[in-house]
Amino acid sequence: MLTWKIKDRPMVYNGTLIEGLPGIGNVGKMVVEYLIEKLKAKKIAELYSSHFPYHVFINKDSTVSLPKNEFYHLKSGNQDLVFLTGDFQSMTPQGHYEIAEAELDYIKKMNINQIITLGGFGVEGVPTKPKVMGAGTTKGVVEEFGKYGVEFEDGERVGMVVGASGVLLGLSKLKGINGICLMGETLARPMFTDARAAKAVLEVLKEKFNLEVDMEDMKKKAKELDKAISKAKDLEKIMLEKIKKPGEELRYIG
Amino acid sequence: MLTWKIKDRPMVYNGTLIEGLPGIGNVGKMVVEYLIEKLKAKKIAELYSSHFPYHVFINKDSTVSLPKNEFYHLKSGNQDLVFLTGDFQSMTPQGHYEIAEAELDYIKKMNINQIITLGGFGVEGVPTKPKVMGAGTTKGVVEEFGKYGVEFEDGERVGMVVGASGVLLGLSKLKGINGICLMGETLARPMFTDARAAKAVLEVLKEKFNLEVDMEDMKKKAKELDKAISKAKDLEKIMLEKIKKPGEELRYIG
Amino acid sequence: MLTWKIKDRPMVYNGTLIEGLPGIGNVGKMVVEYLIEKLKAKKIAELYSSHFPYHVFINKDSTVSLPKNEFYHLKSGNQDLVFLTGDFQSMTPQGHYEIAEAELDYIKKMNINQIITLGGFGVEGVPTKPKVMGAGTTKGVVEEFGKYGVEFEDGERVGMVVGASGVLLGLSKLKGINGICLMGETLARPMFTDARAAKAVLEVLKEKFNLEVDMEDMKKKAKELDKAISKAKDLEKIMLEKIKKPGEELRYIG
Amino acid sequence: MLTWKIKDRPMVYNGTLIEGLPGIGNVGKMVVEYLIEKLKAKKIAELYSSHFPYHVFINKDSTVSLPKNEFYHLKSGNQDLVFLTGDFQSMTPQGHYEIAEAELDYIKKMNINQIITLGGFGVEGVPTKPKVMGAGTTKGVVEEFGKYGVEFEDGERVGMVVGASGVLLGLSKLKGINGICLMGETLARPMFTDARAAKAVLEVLKEKFNLEVDMEDMKKKAKELDKAISKAKDLEKIMLEKIKKPGEELRYIG
Repeated sequence: MLTWKIKDRPMVYNGTLIEGLPGIGNVGKMVVEYLIEKLKAKKIAELYSSHFPYHVFINKDSTVSLPKNEFYHLKSGNQDLVFLTGDFQSMTPQGHYEIAEAELDYIKKMNINQIITLGGFGVEGVPTKPKVMGAGTTKGVVEEFGKYGVEFEDGERVGMVVGASGVLLGLSKLKGINGICLMGETLARPMFTDARAAKAVLEVLKEKFNLEVDMEDMKKKAKELDKAISKAKDLEKIMLEKIKKPGEELRYIG
Repeated sequence: MLTWKIKDRPMVYNGTLIEGLPGIGNVGKMVVEYLIEKLKAKKIAELYSSHFPYHVFINKDSTVSLPKNEFYHLKSGNQDLVFLTGDFQSMTPQGHYEIAEAELDYIKKMNINQIITLGGFGVEGVPTKPKVMGAGTTKGVVEEFGKYGVEFEDGERVGMVVGASGVLLGLSKLKGINGICLMGETLARPMFTDARAAKAVLEVLKEKFNLEVDMEDMKKKAKELDKAISKAKDLEKIMLEKIKKPGEELRYIG
Repeated sequence: MLTWKIKDRPMVYNGTLIEGLPGIGNVGKMVVEYLIEKLKAKKIAELYSSHFPYHVFINKDSTVSLPKNEFYHLKSGNQDLVFLTGDFQSMTPQGHYEIAEAELDYIKKMNINQIITLGGFGVEGVPTKPKVMGAGTTKGVVEEFGKYGVEFEDGERVGMVVGASGVLLGLSKLKGINGICLMGETLARPMFTDARAAKAVLEVLKEKFNLEVDMEDMKKKAKELDKAISKAKDLEKIMLEKIKKPGEELRYIG
Repeated sequence: MLTWKIKDRPMVYNGTLIEGLPGIGNVGKMVVEYLIEKLKAKKIAELYSSHFPYHVFINKDSTVSLPKNEFYHLKSGNQDLVFLTGDFQSMTPQGHYEIAEAELDYIKKMNINQIITLGGFGVEGVPTKPKVMGAGTTKGVVEEFGKYGVEFEDGERVGMVVGASGVLLGLSKLKGINGICLMGETLARPMFTDARAAKAVLEVLKEKFNLEVDMEDMKKKAKELDKAISKAKDLEKIMLEKIKKPGEELRYIG
């Protein structure tokens, strides 16, 4: 089951869809929600589906809401940005395809022919400066984003993009929509909402679309995370030193 | 697969659907079945679905019945109440949406534009006096039911309503049907059929709809439960005291 | 996916469907296959479905066959019997409903308005003489089969009939087809193909439909099972006696 | 969801589909990919499906691709060969049927009325010379391939062919398409890509279709595997000898 609530039908010329749904490090969702808030994008549509969980949220004002995906629109200079975010990705494997198809049909009707999907790229160890990795529907797109500092790994099937960001991109390629997935490097385990990775991805979008976004809040969040990580590292260091003296450690246990 | 058996098509003017399906503490089902019995509501429809279990029940008279949801109708003063109860909620996640959609389409055709879904609200520890918690489709509904003593928690997404009560309410909101979920506080674990929570919910409905329901049987059941709980508490007390003297306890184990 | 292979369209007047698919004790399948073989019923249709397993069998002559359900026809006096058997029941919960619906539509088109589903009734301990338990779509059917020695348990929802036998019967009731499920008592655990239970069920069908079936082979199989069981009981007896003398037992373990 | 990308519509007269998808020992995929490469078959179609995994691969050139099945065409003398290979078989049980149906419809439209599905046949112990086992849609097909050295086991339902190779063959039989499954003997556990089994299957196809395929690379791979296996056997021998002297072994553990 797919149910659309169309709230507005904006005129779109030079349009791009930017998707950021929950996922590893919540990088995509964080970036898109930041842009929606800071640039005051306007909600234009909601999508409900039986592939989302079978519950309602109880909101702050005691009203309820079904899980949904949402579209927001922003006119910025001579370009139109449509943002896609939401509470969940599909809960079922097949739902990923069904929802992505419906969402691409929706943007096709708006004459949008370009898509950017966002996500995290899980790495071992906290990256000193998180890179933004990319994978695109065409070599042209790959070359273009290379200019914005996006890195592309070389090698035979170096990896996969799993979930909404991957399936949206893959189906875009089939439908002749140009697209790229931008993935901010983030810690694979343990997972946390990663403002550092989000900031890195945001900077690519800022440059590509010439956006005037106030970065202060994102920088603040990234710095807080930096501190938390350096503390965690100190802690790890202390713990590692203790482990080196097992006799001492045993006393605590005993 | 959804199959309807329509038994009657009552004329409905000022109509409300009251849903009570099996769930936590069986609160909703207990309330609705009590009202159907005491107010002699008449069965008007049955819904069968492949989302219910693939078995038949063998009834007392050795005839069989597939699992189903049932609708009952009651004219009470200048208002029409339609009750929804049944053997099961959907066994599949997607079935919750499919069944709720079909059920809302059914009541829409009867001109019903108001829904109350019932359930239990799991808490830690037996509540001295179970409260009735609420969540609605609009602020107006929330305000209205505040007058009947229903409590509404404040906070960002304080929780969720899972299953039929939640999905029916969420889809109602999408379809412009006014609705509220009333949840009687009940013990989250261990679970039992909770007449105390059911009584609390019943009293809200009695007041809201001006129903003359004989409450004696429900009060009796609630009192029996009170006794069983106070005995259980005594038992717990005795056990806790024993645990405080671990030496003694050990002798039993040894 | 459902695919029919219709091989013949017999003229049917006073028709009954008798279903025996794999299940507990394989009672139903054994009875129906025995009747098909002894009475030389003729295959009239095959049903294939994606709800059956995704493999082919390799037959004796090295040809392959997809899993299927099969229908056979027999004219016996002034009545028509159609048998339903097969390799599998549905592998998916929802498939049980989809397949049963298709099969009932198929017999409805043949003007069949009566159904008998067969199965095993799991009990604790080997029954001295397995009874045949019943459950029907109407009280009339229940009363009729009482005359043939079928027993009907009294009590509020004494049980369930799970799977094809149950869903076919339940949907028959919805469609106005008269039906009964006949269940031969068989050992719940461990399970084996139970010729004793099958013989008990066969005898009911023989009487009901005035069938002249050579019972020799079934009697032979039932007797072999009797012997195997009495040996098993002896073994159990010996083992139980040993257990009564735990000191001796310990020596074996030690 | 099934999405076709048709790239070419060749004229086909005396056509055969040869399927080799991932499976036990990767025998089928290895054979078909070898033939496509060596005989320079041309891609004519791609099939995408929500029954494949919900991710994209990142290719060597940083572009993405959804998982897919692919068809290649080759005109060889007076015959047309269409090859089917791909990244995955269906991830869902029901998808096996849906995809096989779509693929058979596709070849039917090309007037192809013959199918060969390829796979591995898991055995215990490395076979000295892997045999090619077969199972067909008709006795005629079985007899024909007996001439090419394919072996057919005798016995009541000696086995099954699971997955795409089985379902394609089973549905072919229903649709009146002649077919055979050729299975190269390979080690059931541990599994590896088995060039020896692939070589055995290739030789049957070479003879049947009079193909001039350069076998050098396949022979090389098979020989490398021979060596690896004989080394593994030596290792096993050494280990077995060690185990015969448990006292010595215990010293390592202690």
